[in-house]
Amino acid sequence: MKFLIVGGNAAGMSAASKISRMLPEADITVLEQSNDISYGNCGFPYYFGGLVESLDGLYARRLPRFKEMGINVLLSHKAKSIDRDKQQVLAVNPQGEVTFNYDRLILATGASPAVPPVPGMDLGNVFVLRTMQDARDIDGSLSRAKQICVVGGGYIGLEMAENFSLRGLDVTVVQRSNLLPALDESLSALVEKELVDHGVKVKTGHQLMGIEGQTRAEKIITDKGSFPADLVLVATGVKPNSQLAVEAGLETTAEGAIVVDEFLATSDKNIFAAGDCARNWHRVSQGWSWLPLGDTANKMGRTAAVNAAGDKQPFPGVVGTAAVKVFDLNVGHTGFGLSQAKEFFPDARAIEITAPDRPGYYPGRGRVTCRLIFLPSGKLVGAQAAGSPAAVEAVNICSLALGLEADVEDLAAMDLAYAPPYSPVWHLLLIAAGRAVTEMES
Amino acid sequence: MKFLIVGGNAAGMSAASKISRMLPEADITVLEQSNDISYGNCGFPYYFGGLVESLDGLYARRLPRFKEMGINVLLSHKAKSIDRDKQQVLAVNPQGEVTFNYDRLILATGASPAVPPVPGMDLGNVFVLRTMQDARDIDGSLSRAKQICVVGGGYIGLEMAENFSLRGLDVTVVQRSNLLPALDESLSALVEKELVDHGVKVKTGHQLMGIEGQTRAEKIITDKGSFPADLVLVATGVKPNSQLAVEAGLETTAEGAIVVDEFLATSDKNIFAAGDCARNWHRVSQGWSWLPLGDTANKMGRTAAVNAAGDKQPFPGVVGTAAVKVFDLNVGHTGFGLSQAKEFFPDARAIEITAPDRPGYYPGRGRVTCRLIFLPSGKLVGAQAAGSPAAVEAVNICSLALGLEADVEDLAAMDLAYAPPYSPVWHLLLIAAGRAVTEMES
Repeated sequence: MKFLIVGGNAAGMSAASKISRMLPEADITVLEQSNDISYGNCGFPYYFGGLVESLDGLYARRLPRFKEMGINVLLSHKAKSIDRDKQQVLAVNPQGEVTFNYDRLILATGASPAVPPVPGMDLGNVFVLRTMQDARDIDGSLSRAKQICVVGGGYIGLEMAENFSLRGLDVTVVQRSNLLPALDESLSALVEKELVDHGVKVKTGHQLMGIEGQTRAEKIITDKGSFPADLVLVATGVKPNSQLAVEAGLETTAEGAIVVDEFLATSDKNIFAAGDCARNWHRVSQGWSWLPLGDTANKMGRTAAVNAAGDKQPFPGVVGTAAVKVFDLNVGHTGFGLSQAKEFFPDARAIEITAPDRPGYYPGRGRVTCRLIFLPSGKLVGAQAAGSPAAVEAVNICSLALGLEADVEDLAAMDLAYAPPYSPVWHLLLIAAGRAVTEMES
Repeated sequence: MKFLIVGGNAAGMSAASKISRMLPEADITVLEQSNDISYGNCGFPYYFGGLVESLDGLYARRLPRFKEMGINVLLSHKAKSIDRDKQQVLAVNPQGEVTFNYDRLILATGASPAVPPVPGMDLGNVFVLRTMQDARDIDGSLSRAKQICVVGGGYIGLEMAENFSLRGLDVTVVQRSNLLPALDESLSALVEKELVDHGVKVKTGHQLMGIEGQTRAEKIITDKGSFPADLVLVATGVKPNSQLAVEAGLETTAEGAIVVDEFLATSDKNIFAAGDCARNWHRVSQGWSWLPLGDTANKMGRTAAVNAAGDKQPFPGVVGTAAVKVFDLNVGHTGFGLSQAKEFFPDARAIEITAPDRPGYYPGRGRVTCRLIFLPSGKLVGAQAAGSPAAVEAVNICSLALGLEADVEDLAAMDLAYAPPYSPVWHLLLIAAGRAVTEMES
């Protein structure tokens, strides 16, 4: 059986590895358009901040390792079209065109930066950050940069703002809405404060109008002002790479994500899709969504492989969990914030507490602001937290609660670990859940 | 309505505080035999290690605060007997005997050190550590101590061993079985290694035979050797303080814990019991147990108060979660270890993994050894972990899983937060759960 995989990063290489473990004799080929495979692009910000020594350190596995596993990885091979009747993919490489046959095809084409349609995007020193090549390009220009403008206040934007700032650069973040728009406003405000307290200038509610300069970026223009910048990072989100799928007549969603079923099969039963190019099932809204995240991509790749290899294993879906560190503020969220939740559950409500993460007498104690979002029945539909690292732990616990359709009373009945180095007698999540139960009953 | 509470620490003061919030006009009296109330005795080890500056820092609330809340706290009042017919408690204080009437009585008498019946326990410089007075006594002798012997390898014993050692003292731990007997052996071994690596001498499998010395302890004798010690801490567990209840004819368990129902009422409907003196419901074994822990005591105190005040609120029970820090090793467990689980579930099995807590490229990455204990059906019955602080997070997540009767497939389907500062793409608990699912299917 011939397996062909388009895309050699998170979802693609997870899929290839899984197939090779399941079917050691299988014929597995991966087509990757760039010259880089299997790297942790979530690590880029930490390279720029100096925590990670070299970009090379971000490779998870190298080509020879995949070769040992019997996986044929072809770099610089861009898939151009799919002939679904002949079960063939046409690819171009620097030498010309090549055709690949498949019994099962897995599309793991990922996502690409969605860049606002404003003038100046083609100026020098205007970058996006998605691929290893993007990282190298930024790296090559950074030594001469002094004033950086980051357009976009999402995960990548803020991680890069922090790390540029840790490097001693002057950083301005420009964001159309609140920072980290998945967060409810009060937490978003904590994130903004953390950035400002660390010397990052934050301009929220600013719509980018364009970037100006002779040949290289000199300033960015928003609807409310202009800001000097000798390097601009545009991190305004991503869009699914689904053109290949669309041209082959596969179904896609309004957002452009490839339509897959619970087994990650596309509308063609011999073609699967996984990772940022495909839609995913949201277990809280009980509907299809598109949440392109690295860990989800890895899991989807593995599940697509299992199903492509002939087993039946549904992908459980996501509950929408994410975390981001912004200087000393640890931020996490799962499910929906109150404003988002109201789209699906008009009677959703929220409580918010701020509580310590350790007993008063224990040194180094931090605080966490934690929100629980729930229905009048008590059913949890979201949790968000910011503060010490305990914020992310609280969110992780709540992510399981969401997966198990638990309610706030289940959270209030938890028997969490108590010892002074880890928690006060009343764990912050018990305080939050207790508050939610009271709110529910009132 | 007159509420009388015997015991002024975790359960007792939680109960008193809760009643005062529910019924601000209620007549609430607390009888405390010592001169200290409402202190965090879990913090004692960190005082001895120097992390906490003074024992005074361990008081959670002081008398005036309780007075403001309308709670009448009587120190140096030892309850001697209960007249259930007259609904009276006879107490002695330094001036003589006093009788207190009650409509509802809450017993929060706690637990006391269970000391092995061997010679030498009455020598000078042999201590237990339970009350503020115990802590003061140790403190008074510590400046002259050089060689410490800690008898008992449970939570308190190991926390004290660590903190004595951090203070520069020569410490030997003597323990009858493995360290932290709730842990399966492989994790217990990691704890032993951590102690030894930090210069603590560990003698497991040693049964204490006696303590020898002229007037003060000079050495301890076990069945396998003798060890010099100028200060001995005996931390060999606790027993419930239920004599008052027994003499009043209230039912107790084989362990001596006061029998309570799900509303924490004793066999007398006007008398409730909470905290370390009472039994608690184990949600995993679905049977009564006795797990005397500080956070549970606080929760039981609050629930007893709600029910004593006339509402009906069941205590959800415990799943057996605990954590302890031993130098740089963070240890947690919930539910049952494999050996314990087999008592209730003969076909229980376990998997064990060791996995990193962050991506390879992220600095400061730690590792966690994690065990999941589950039934052939996949139902989780326990989790244990040791390593970086992520160990305790994993255990907390599993504690919710136990409370919700989840199986390892539910854990494998979790959507946990991923970002380089918090987790690798595959969270260690996903790796463990995936292994358990495979094991289950094999």
